[in-house]
Amino acid sequence: MLDELREECGVIGIYDGENVARNVAMGLYALQHRGQESAGFAVSDGAKIRVRKSMGLVSALLREHDAGELKGRAGIGHVRYSTTGASTLANAQPILVGCKWGQIAVAHNGNITNAAELRAEMEAEGHIFQTTSDSEILLHEIARTRAGDLGEAVEKAVAKLTGSFSLVFLSKDAMYVARDGFGFRPLSLGRLGNAWCAASETCAFDLLGAKYVRDVEPGEFLTVTREGVRSRRFVRKERRAHCIFECIYFARPDSRIFGQSCDKVRRKMGKKLAEERPVDADIVVAVPDSAATAALGYAQASGIRFEIGLLRNHYVGRTFIDPAQDVREQKVRLKFNPIEGVLKGRRVCVVDDSLVRGTTLRILVRMIRDAGATEVHVRIASPPVAHPCFFGMDFPSSRELAAASMAPEEIAAALGVDSLGYLSVEGMKECTGEGEHYCAACFDGNYPDYVGAKTDKARCG
Amino acid sequence: MLDELREECGVIGIYDGENVARNVAMGLYALQHRGQESAGFAVSDGAKIRVRKSMGLVSALLREHDAGELKGRAGIGHVRYSTTGASTLANAQPILVGCKWGQIAVAHNGNITNAAELRAEMEAEGHIFQTTSDSEILLHEIARTRAGDLGEAVEKAVAKLTGSFSLVFLSKDAMYVARDGFGFRPLSLGRLGNAWCAASETCAFDLLGAKYVRDVEPGEFLTVTREGVRSRRFVRKERRAHCIFECIYFARPDSRIFGQSCDKVRRKMGKKLAEERPVDADIVVAVPDSAATAALGYAQASGIRFEIGLLRNHYVGRTFIDPAQDVREQKVRLKFNPIEGVLKGRRVCVVDDSLVRGTTLRILVRMIRDAGATEVHVRIASPPVAHPCFFGMDFPSSRELAAASMAPEEIAAALGVDSLGYLSVEGMKECTGEGEHYCAACFDGNYPDYVGAKTDKARCG
Amino acid sequence: MLDELREECGVIGIYDGENVARNVAMGLYALQHRGQESAGFAVSDGAKIRVRKSMGLVSALLREHDAGELKGRAGIGHVRYSTTGASTLANAQPILVGCKWGQIAVAHNGNITNAAELRAEMEAEGHIFQTTSDSEILLHEIARTRAGDLGEAVEKAVAKLTGSFSLVFLSKDAMYVARDGFGFRPLSLGRLGNAWCAASETCAFDLLGAKYVRDVEPGEFLTVTREGVRSRRFVRKERRAHCIFECIYFARPDSRIFGQSCDKVRRKMGKKLAEERPVDADIVVAVPDSAATAALGYAQASGIRFEIGLLRNHYVGRTFIDPAQDVREQKVRLKFNPIEGVLKGRRVCVVDDSLVRGTTLRILVRMIRDAGATEVHVRIASPPVAHPCFFGMDFPSSRELAAASMAPEEIAAALGVDSLGYLSVEGMKECTGEGEHYCAACFDGNYPDYVGAKTDKARCG
Amino acid sequence: MLDELREECGVIGIYDGENVARNVAMGLYALQHRGQESAGFAVSDGAKIRVRKSMGLVSALLREHDAGELKGRAGIGHVRYSTTGASTLANAQPILVGCKWGQIAVAHNGNITNAAELRAEMEAEGHIFQTTSDSEILLHEIARTRAGDLGEAVEKAVAKLTGSFSLVFLSKDAMYVARDGFGFRPLSLGRLGNAWCAASETCAFDLLGAKYVRDVEPGEFLTVTREGVRSRRFVRKERRAHCIFECIYFARPDSRIFGQSCDKVRRKMGKKLAEERPVDADIVVAVPDSAATAALGYAQASGIRFEIGLLRNHYVGRTFIDPAQDVREQKVRLKFNPIEGVLKGRRVCVVDDSLVRGTTLRILVRMIRDAGATEVHVRIASPPVAHPCFFGMDFPSSRELAAASMAPEEIAAALGVDSLGYLSVEGMKECTGEGEHYCAACFDGNYPDYVGAKTDKARCG
Repeated sequence: MLDELREECGVIGIYDGENVARNVAMGLYALQHRGQESAGFAVSDGAKIRVRKSMGLVSALLREHDAGELKGRAGIGHVRYSTTGASTLANAQPILVGCKWGQIAVAHNGNITNAAELRAEMEAEGHIFQTTSDSEILLHEIARTRAGDLGEAVEKAVAKLTGSFSLVFLSKDAMYVARDGFGFRPLSLGRLGNAWCAASETCAFDLLGAKYVRDVEPGEFLTVTREGVRSRRFVRKERRAHCIFECIYFARPDSRIFGQSCDKVRRKMGKKLAEERPVDADIVVAVPDSAATAALGYAQASGIRFEIGLLRNHYVGRTFIDPAQDVREQKVRLKFNPIEGVLKGRRVCVVDDSLVRGTTLRILVRMIRDAGATEVHVRIASPPVAHPCFFGMDFPSSRELAAASMAPEEIAAALGVDSLGYLSVEGMKECTGEGEHYCAACFDGNYPDYVGAKTDKARCG
Repeated sequence: MLDELREECGVIGIYDGENVARNVAMGLYALQHRGQESAGFAVSDGAKIRVRKSMGLVSALLREHDAGELKGRAGIGHVRYSTTGASTLANAQPILVGCKWGQIAVAHNGNITNAAELRAEMEAEGHIFQTTSDSEILLHEIARTRAGDLGEAVEKAVAKLTGSFSLVFLSKDAMYVARDGFGFRPLSLGRLGNAWCAASETCAFDLLGAKYVRDVEPGEFLTVTREGVRSRRFVRKERRAHCIFECIYFARPDSRIFGQSCDKVRRKMGKKLAEERPVDADIVVAVPDSAATAALGYAQASGIRFEIGLLRNHYVGRTFIDPAQDVREQKVRLKFNPIEGVLKGRRVCVVDDSLVRGTTLRILVRMIRDAGATEVHVRIASPPVAHPCFFGMDFPSSRELAAASMAPEEIAAALGVDSLGYLSVEGMKECTGEGEHYCAACFDGNYPDYVGAKTDKARCG
Repeated sequence: MLDELREECGVIGIYDGENVARNVAMGLYALQHRGQESAGFAVSDGAKIRVRKSMGLVSALLREHDAGELKGRAGIGHVRYSTTGASTLANAQPILVGCKWGQIAVAHNGNITNAAELRAEMEAEGHIFQTTSDSEILLHEIARTRAGDLGEAVEKAVAKLTGSFSLVFLSKDAMYVARDGFGFRPLSLGRLGNAWCAASETCAFDLLGAKYVRDVEPGEFLTVTREGVRSRRFVRKERRAHCIFECIYFARPDSRIFGQSCDKVRRKMGKKLAEERPVDADIVVAVPDSAATAALGYAQASGIRFEIGLLRNHYVGRTFIDPAQDVREQKVRLKFNPIEGVLKGRRVCVVDDSLVRGTTLRILVRMIRDAGATEVHVRIASPPVAHPCFFGMDFPSSRELAAASMAPEEIAAALGVDSLGYLSVEGMKECTGEGEHYCAACFDGNYPDYVGAKTDKARCG
Repeated sequence: MLDELREECGVIGIYDGENVARNVAMGLYALQHRGQESAGFAVSDGAKIRVRKSMGLVSALLREHDAGELKGRAGIGHVRYSTTGASTLANAQPILVGCKWGQIAVAHNGNITNAAELRAEMEAEGHIFQTTSDSEILLHEIARTRAGDLGEAVEKAVAKLTGSFSLVFLSKDAMYVARDGFGFRPLSLGRLGNAWCAASETCAFDLLGAKYVRDVEPGEFLTVTREGVRSRRFVRKERRAHCIFECIYFARPDSRIFGQSCDKVRRKMGKKLAEERPVDADIVVAVPDSAATAALGYAQASGIRFEIGLLRNHYVGRTFIDPAQDVREQKVRLKFNPIEGVLKGRRVCVVDDSLVRGTTLRILVRMIRDAGATEVHVRIASPPVAHPCFFGMDFPSSRELAAASMAPEEIAAALGVDSLGYLSVEGMKECTGEGEHYCAACFDGNYPDYVGAKTDKARCG
């Protein structure tokens, strides 16, 4: 995707294993694509939990903190994107607090839609808030819940939440894992030797050499102790609502989420797109790296040759601002290299996985034309994004969504392309199998759950 | 003092002025001696409070954060020492929270002795704690207090505390200032043009060009708004209990605290010491820099010549550890330079302001002998420290206090000196004037207030 | 390529333009793949040359130094790999010196094979050396040359060198450009508006929006002044000897070097490989990212389906060393993600552009098998590397070259693959067109020029 | 001194000892006052010399580089001030080069007055220069000298220099030490166990626990090898010319230089000043820290009480610039704290060691008046500085020297003092003993040696 949608977080937890800090960090490396703004881990040595967090990548976390300092056999980790400039260390996770139950740490992926209401209620009752994170609200709820023990309190607290959440908790001697009743965000259970682990995506298991056991069920609450794993249901919804955008773009292609191999779903979407939106072109080219699989599918189904016509420069860091130039254009030019030898004199079909704003694609289309393409056709392996997300994806405001105010042909004109085609909502759902169990609200506006009072912006937990 | 007593904090607040962030930082420079572990400031623009904190000196704070980003006309600041290794950014101040009253930030100097009890009570009621700081407990108390407005809540919360506290609070449109009923720690009120300011020591006013107005009274609660300053008493104690160690060592000599010029009190202590503990020596030499004034007083009263026989190296940073050497000795040698030309062939009277552990002095005495001194006599311008402090000074545990287990002559033998003499408790109190209004518990064991359940270690707020 | 061959450098120069420092840096971004260890630029304001260098990427250079400080209308830049641990700022380029001709700066790509002899001669005559760089030797030669002016001195000095060099020089009022007589390394001439520019690869022109004019000829010396460009030949060789490894792996696919589009040459190599070394497999998979084009060519020619079966993780930074684990394996696992959905149950043909050591490939093959591949066949789009390079490529010592001591079938066994096939030397040369004008010494041992007395290791200039 | 004269460097060398890198660094700590802009050390392991340098203090050097990496039994070190903004790592010392004699490193304190001529001659002969440092010129001279061995070459090269130099060289198996024929800068020889050491000041020996043996003689050249120390004279001058400013301000009071204890000379100057320039005042106050000894001497001779009326803040780092304020004033106020209790109502005699610009003193005088002093008299324990230094001291240009254009009474008026008195040149020389062996050119304009063609600014080697 061109727009680098900022969204989401990634979580991981490991209970009762060797080298826990190191393995949690290793797992975070595999989940790095889910959040690059801050990273952190917390480990319990059975008596005390210690937490370390850093702004930036997992590699920064490991540069600033010695994993060896975090002794213990249980730990959780988190990578995070924030949606606003207020990205500070204070908001990084895991968040660790002390309360009547002792110490508890949490790592959260998702967006709690009744957070504002809960916070207002808690403030009225005398609570203080040091962050703007949903997770702090959840910790307050746990601390004030009446229960027989911490596990029961966590379960009760989780049951009060609406919205999306894949959660991993760490107490001094247990790990708790919970997933919202709709199953918006992925969360899987695995085994690493004798240890239990939970992670946002199975690619973390693969890197660790852990075995995938099963998905954590929507509405399921797991208590992991030395006695093993105990499962309970804290809520049952009439349907599931897996985020279809995870399949389209966000999850790593080598992950298995929602019972599907991501890579296979993307190839199907590419094929379906070729069926629905054929094109008369010489070559199919992907927007690297995320759209490669969909583009391959498109090429296979259409019989048009797949080519590598755009390269992505992975070295781009901070750039200089030359006020006399278009900054966005500079960034796009630094990031993508069109290969003239491939594009020149060709009718090019460019496949991308999704189209949000369109501003970047407009620049890229011009670069492809400048490289000598005679025609540029754009095919998007998902429908037009037209509605905000309240469950963890940080789409821009409606005003900035290309499809919110323009018809496809207007967008095509704005992009300067010869043709533009999207995958249909039905076609898309078909590719996932069990399409009725997905949330496609950003495409069709059908929100499966309460969207909250804070309708301005969905925030990552 | 040789042992670099770690203790204390420094606070400052300015209400309704120009360049507030800059002036708060300037004031923190003047208070830097009160805390060198972390520094921070918070500024309100009338609608929102922003906070910035850094580990290290005020110069690090200003290197990492642009004071110009903190717009507004009211602000508070803090410099901090922590007493344990757990010195982290999370514990740095000011602490800023949101609660039912809106945003509130606090900067605290002192040690709340009923903190553990309050925290236990709050935890039982469902509160969470993200730091190990007393100040967080106070903020919880404010948030859960029933009151007509924030000011009343702050006052009520403060009234529940025991122990020592000089506090400055910032809300979006007011500043609150409070001092415990015994007046353990200094806190002064001043004017900078039309703005009001409060600071731990008057030296901050001098640097800012502000005018000293008066001390904040023990038990006084000030509400500073655009309407001006309103004063109330939240508690009245039968006596005062100013920390006498502030006069001996901690406050800056150019500050006026507890109604006295620090510098004058120290000179008197030196003179009194000369009376009580005369010596037959050729020269009087101070342990730099803190004992210079007392040594001058000793020289004047005794008629023995004052000389600069020890220099202090201010460039010492991180040093290397050579396992084959005594690390403490390396540090002392890097820090103090004996001047052979002054010491050689002389009977030297070394004056220090206080003696806590004695381990460093032992090394220094040997260095003075190595430089050729024929006799080394030590005079301490305060009594033996024999009791822990629960009100904000971080003395080592009793086990490490030289005077807790040894008689003066034993200490003299351990130090390897020809004679050792302390100032008497009576002599010391006499020098302060109104000696009955001082807390000298570290010397005489008479604690004026509840010392708390957490008797292990006094912590800085 | 798996082994991340460390080699080479990239150079750029711009004469008489606006925003020179910014444009030089932008060009270095495009050349970043040629050197990631240090980066630097030098700019002349007509009177004085200023230089700035940093360890690390171009983004580090721009973070540490303000491009705006370097005023002027002419500048040169350099990105560098070093081949040994002695990678220090002192060896970074451009190197700027003062001499009888005034200031002169140089940026060098290549390896001067008579450097050791020249240095010995100069040392005997009383010269000092502050770096271990060939470029310093060249600067000495310029400084001690008798000539009418600087330009003549540079030309004379360059004519004394053997080996490979693509050079850009900056004096206060001119730019000089030179390329060795065999044309080992690429070097192109372009125009950016009215300014002239030279760069290692044309991709730098594309990013800048500059127009490619022509290649700098082997043995050509260009003097660029306000009067324009003057060309002279300082040497004429009977043949050319373009580095064929630039085509195979090192140059960016969107660059045009040696008169060929890199991307096209690589596709041809993939097709030729399919002809020479067919395979009975279900899918063709590339080692990302460098082998993608060759793999596509292989797929097209063989009719076997191209699939994306391996992903590359671009976030990998410093990793932790767990002594109980194989570090190399850890690195490979962090860097490459096999996609089970693609590989499982398939006979996989893995295409890589070259095979140097093979140690990494062995691990990758096992990962592919673990992902469920039933057969793994490896095809290498170049011949076995069996000889060291003395002209700028940093191959490991012969001892580490897989092909230096093992026959292909032995290598296949060591890799654990079902079959292994290389492209033939003849097949490879055929793909470049005019194959006789290429140096393929690393494959066939035919060195076109003096290889120098320092035969241990080829160093990048 | 108020003006923080930037000048000088400090050098140290140790031959054939244990823990050489560590001990060199320790010695640099003791010499830190001689240069705070960069620090470096070089160590030979008998076969190879390694060098490490950093911008900033010795503590930065040790933070950035591991002393343990520098194995070997011989090493040299350097701390440096530069006199211009061009303070870069390239100019930091030791400088290490390779030449026909093998590797050689040098650390230099002083200013070579025929450097410009030598460089012009060398450039004409074809040499290149990578720094603007005198020391690089010296290394060229060594490299091009015809001699039987390196030692002879170093000696011959040194003999060609005019100006001031205290030099320590390191080859792979020897240390060379040289001092100019006038003995401008201090340089001492000592023993640390069986190892030999040389250092700018004896305070480095004291910190290391080394024994002072003797001063290196003016014009002496020492060759230190495993066979011991061999001494030769490379030049004999009719007189000595020790820099009297070392005695007045620059050397550390606990150092013994030029056969005198610094501290004693300063006390004598204070006493002499009291004789020559008596005052009718209540107290004598020093400008801290450098003038303390002179002030004590003044107090003793005059019978006026010595008081600590000004404190120096050692925490001042980077400050913010408020354009609406006088930056210099801000700096002075942050750095010096007047003690009102001491100054108020008193007639104050302020003693400083020297007066260069006077701009800072003007601000300080006002601060003392603001603190309540009824009269402010200034006494300077040296004569008016009226001439530039070409031998290593970085005075401002004549235009900025207060005494170059104003008579004492005019300066007094500009400073706003009630009276101003300087020590006479004769009085000053008397205090050093053998006054005819000192260079006092900055006071009397009598330059003992060739001052060079580059008369603009004296540079530190």
